[in-house]
Amino acid sequence: MVSERLSKQLAFIVEIDKLKQILRQSVVTGSVRNENDAEHSWHLAVMAILLSEYASTKEIDILRVVKMVLIHDLVEIDAGDTFCYDAKGYEDKAQREQKAADRLFNLLPSDQASEIMELWREFEDLTTPEARFAACLDRIQPLLLNYHTNGHTWKKPGVTSQMVYQRNAVVEENAPELYDYVKEIIESSINKGYLQR
Amino acid sequence: MVSERLSKQLAFIVEIDKLKQILRQSVVTGSVRNENDAEHSWHLAVMAILLSEYASTKEIDILRVVKMVLIHDLVEIDAGDTFCYDAKGYEDKAQREQKAADRLFNLLPSDQASEIMELWREFEDLTTPEARFAACLDRIQPLLLNYHTNGHTWKKPGVTSQMVYQRNAVVEENAPELYDYVKEIIESSINKGYLQR
Ligand SMILES: [Ca+2]
Repeated sequence: MVSERLSKQLAFIVEIDKLKQILRQSVVTGSVRNENDAEHSWHLAVMAILLSEYASTKEIDILRVVKMVLIHDLVEIDAGDTFCYDAKGYEDKAQREQKAADRLFNLLPSDQASEIMELWREFEDLTTPEARFAACLDRIQPLLLNYHTNGHTWKKPGVTSQMVYQRNAVVEENAPELYDYVKEIIESSINKGYLQR
Repeated sequence: MVSERLSKQLAFIVEIDKLKQILRQSVVTGSVRNENDAEHSWHLAVMAILLSEYASTKEIDILRVVKMVLIHDLVEIDAGDTFCYDAKGYEDKAQREQKAADRLFNLLPSDQASEIMELWREFEDLTTPEARFAACLDRIQPLLLNYHTNGHTWKKPGVTSQMVYQRNAVVEENAPELYDYVKEIIESSINKGYLQR
């Protein structure tokens, strides 16, 4: 018989399989299929490993960043993905996501439930350099996908370059070299007709 | 203008988006859709964080395990997924994958290309406790999915419990408590008719 602790860990691991069915607005490059949160989280984790040298705070804890990006969207299993340019959806986002966090993370043994809850709050509240760098990655990854799918998400009604700039403001302060790239992509996207000025 | 270094890193990050289209044999729970390698890698990374206490070698480097599982399947972008119970596919697997590694990892700046190449070789050759623990996770994750999808992959022609036991042998030595669970799942799967004895 496996221990109660391991049973809880395995139940959580099976439960979060559902993240693979939470669809985002972005489409995967070379396809017409929406990306899901699990793929997105994987992509961010690889980026965390490869791009940490660009964090404006030196010697950030890379494992902490990786953990954060791996778990940052788990709450969407219950709360769903809220499109970042949907003001209405944002009204009750925090409340829906807190409820989801309480249910999901508490499937784990209490020490790990606390650890994941803290990581998630840290990510949401941008309270540390690690959380702010994780947020930079979470902005840049969809930018990359949009740029390489002819501006897929940016063509939705009402999206403008000003909104994309605003969404990426966190990158300017926390990863300035990556922000140079963000600006290049946005301006190039306007020129190519992927994004409204 | 972004630096040549950053350009290379970003080109790699865009290229590996293709991992989201490499399908595995397993299906995602609650669906009839095949899992892809990016989702699988994400799942392993979360497992690495939650289950490291079960590694038989104490004080393994968790970040190293996480890095390995995040990148372990990238070579399948070129080489494709080889079903673990396909003896024929295994004949030239190593050669196809080495070629893929050479092309893909060398999109990165040389220091990072070397780092990822070493991590991948370490994973393939099981030369460290970290690699062996990563391999345990890579065995247990499809076991979990199979068990929760009525034995989906195990119902393919010719798959027997002996083959599944053999595939999971690495778990016995490197994570004994997890192996107790593996045995439970295999025996329960035989009883439920998910897997041939
Ligand atoms: Ca999100």
